[in-house]
Amino acid sequence: MIETKNHLLSGRIRTMSESATIKMAQKARDLSAQGRDVISLSLGEPDFDTPEHIKAAAVQALKDGYTKYTPVPGLVEYREAICTKFKRDNNLHFKPAEIMVSNGAKQCIANICMALLNPGDDAVVLTPYWVSYFEIVRFAGGNPIALSAGIDTEFKISPDQLDEVLTDQTKLIIFSSPSNPTGSVYTERELRQLAAVIARYPNLIVVSDEIYEYINFLDTHFSIGSIPEISDRVITVNGMSKGFAMTGWRLGYMGGPEWIARACAKVQGQVTSGASAFGQKAAAYALLSDLSPTHAMRDAFMKRRDLVKQLLQDIPGIKVNNPQGAFYFFPDISEYFGKSNGQRFIDNADEFVDVLLDEANVAVVSGTAFGDDTTFRLSYAASEDQLVEALNRMKEVLGKYV
Amino acid sequence: MIETKNHLLSGRIRTMSESATIKMAQKARDLSAQGRDVISLSLGEPDFDTPEHIKAAAVQALKDGYTKYTPVPGLVEYREAICTKFKRDNNLHFKPAEIMVSNGAKQCIANICMALLNPGDDAVVLTPYWVSYFEIVRFAGGNPIALSAGIDTEFKISPDQLDEVLTDQTKLIIFSSPSNPTGSVYTERELRQLAAVIARYPNLIVVSDEIYEYINFLDTHFSIGSIPEISDRVITVNGMSKGFAMTGWRLGYMGGPEWIARACAKVQGQVTSGASAFGQKAAAYALLSDLSPTHAMRDAFMKRRDLVKQLLQDIPGIKVNNPQGAFYFFPDISEYFGKSNGQRFIDNADEFVDVLLDEANVAVVSGTAFGDDTTFRLSYAASEDQLVEALNRMKEVLGKYV
Repeated sequence: MIETKNHLLSGRIRTMSESATIKMAQKARDLSAQGRDVISLSLGEPDFDTPEHIKAAAVQALKDGYTKYTPVPGLVEYREAICTKFKRDNNLHFKPAEIMVSNGAKQCIANICMALLNPGDDAVVLTPYWVSYFEIVRFAGGNPIALSAGIDTEFKISPDQLDEVLTDQTKLIIFSSPSNPTGSVYTERELRQLAAVIARYPNLIVVSDEIYEYINFLDTHFSIGSIPEISDRVITVNGMSKGFAMTGWRLGYMGGPEWIARACAKVQGQVTSGASAFGQKAAAYALLSDLSPTHAMRDAFMKRRDLVKQLLQDIPGIKVNNPQGAFYFFPDISEYFGKSNGQRFIDNADEFVDVLLDEANVAVVSGTAFGDDTTFRLSYAASEDQLVEALNRMKEVLGKYV
Repeated sequence: MIETKNHLLSGRIRTMSESATIKMAQKARDLSAQGRDVISLSLGEPDFDTPEHIKAAAVQALKDGYTKYTPVPGLVEYREAICTKFKRDNNLHFKPAEIMVSNGAKQCIANICMALLNPGDDAVVLTPYWVSYFEIVRFAGGNPIALSAGIDTEFKISPDQLDEVLTDQTKLIIFSSPSNPTGSVYTERELRQLAAVIARYPNLIVVSDEIYEYINFLDTHFSIGSIPEISDRVITVNGMSKGFAMTGWRLGYMGGPEWIARACAKVQGQVTSGASAFGQKAAAYALLSDLSPTHAMRDAFMKRRDLVKQLLQDIPGIKVNNPQGAFYFFPDISEYFGKSNGQRFIDNADEFVDVLLDEANVAVVSGTAFGDDTTFRLSYAASEDQLVEALNRMKEVLGKYV
């Protein structure tokens, strides 16, 4: 009999942190199960259902017998649809051999890191970052380097900052725009400035996570991979989850240099093989069909963004950022540090979110999970009623902290 | 511009072999695309479609909005169904916290290896082995050790052989029964003998891959995890692909000690998160519903097994094994080594399968891919007409080699 067993786990598992977003979502679920009326604004998924025409395409594919293994990089027909989409929306010109389909965009990023990072390799992660970037880089043996920007620049780094942190040894740079957790969007002009820096580091590979592309309140989405000077070393990651409300389908994809796509296929061939066959058929249909349900969801998110902004600005001591995409606010709450309601102190972002959960029954995620210790992430992928109620509760509870 | 780019790939990718089965299947597809009438007996998937009642359950789940992220270890309802199935079919007693659902049984094995193996850790792989075991162990940094048995023992190892190869440092032992590639099935008696050896190595974890459980021509399937002396360190891997003809759905699962299930969830949380939501609903339904379509498929495979056996035995120089499960033959063809048709020699198993592809237009896989250099794997997951035609062609071509 093995008594203490954790010593049998691999080192990579013992040093791996649990996802703070998943932990908070679970905590909220547990409290709800105990009968507490918790409003969870901690989740990273649209509260909409998948549009009907996409479900219908999946049903048809099932009927047509798309129940078999697909090639590891994905059905040719889905990869062709992805090429069409990249050209139409992003001015990116790929052939199917440069596309890799995975079980979610997360797996694309895991494949890339496993394919490119050797132990100790540096990967620059624009910060605040999506929680998994850091852990995936470490899982692959790499060394994640946080490059931080604060609320005063809308959490966007400057070209000079980038130049300062890059070296000839930096292997990867990873970021998302529209950003999870901040909602910030890099403009074309800003991306061109960053690309000018990147162009001076010829061995650097760029991972541009554009999973929130369709939830963008600016006029256009710009892909850094479309800039010719660096296009041969940009990997554009995207997927069906956010824009098509298909989180539970697990269908991400990447477009990038063929030698990287091939290496990713090799990794994935050993870990999961190809993604769901009928799912890929439905996703191919989704990409090429009417996008008006996608645009309607974006419009709903924008309306909520405006609503939540107003309500957040109405709470003293919260410095609200100005998200232009995704479905998150990432407000600075450092003014609350040191304040007390007479019984309890708030000294950091973790304690701030604990207060909201314990006293307001509102679940949000501490900024520390995303590499920023003065903020919290609020997801507005919830109904307007829930949002109003949650923000009212927050205001009331925080009003007691002086 | 990066000129030569493969030097930028990680070491783990550069040393990874491409799957021989996938390579042969691709070669067969390429030749077919060129107009050659190739019969492919190289594939590891049932040629049946998923039973209708399972498809209907997926359609219902889609309709019911099961399109969202699930918990990483899987929907509770699916894990409960898996517990019921393990108890009903395998005398294995798990609770949902001991179950992990993945994108295919392959990912279960990858999770396990990533969770347990440190660089240099030994993993004993019963040989002939499923190609991916070796590569996954190496991918996780482990050191795979082949423990081989030949056709004279139906490719099954003896307890003495096992005892000889195990050390106190051996971390894992991995095998499948019914076996891919041999079709052999370890009986209860044989597994109890192996378990008696395993019981003497208290730090050894057993990975029992039972994905072919339902394609078993013996009366019963026995799970090594049900043996009390070692049950607290056996991981039983299974899934929907083979027994329910659901390869393209990507739904595998494992039952094992909770500390391992948790570690696997941690790995998977960083690589892919939970599996498809509506797929899990359909799979839960499949496990608990009428198994007669599954049994009908098994009966069809058994009929083909008998047919192919007769046809193989009719080809001189082929020593045929006696598969009792899965859908493969793994014949010894070493008598052909050194033979020639006057223009071309066969000197090894790789050349043997090349001759079959080039001259008979029949695609099978060389035994070297599975750790045995005197054999080939023939999949009879094909129609009886195709099987008869393929075997006739093989006989004719091989008749010229003397």
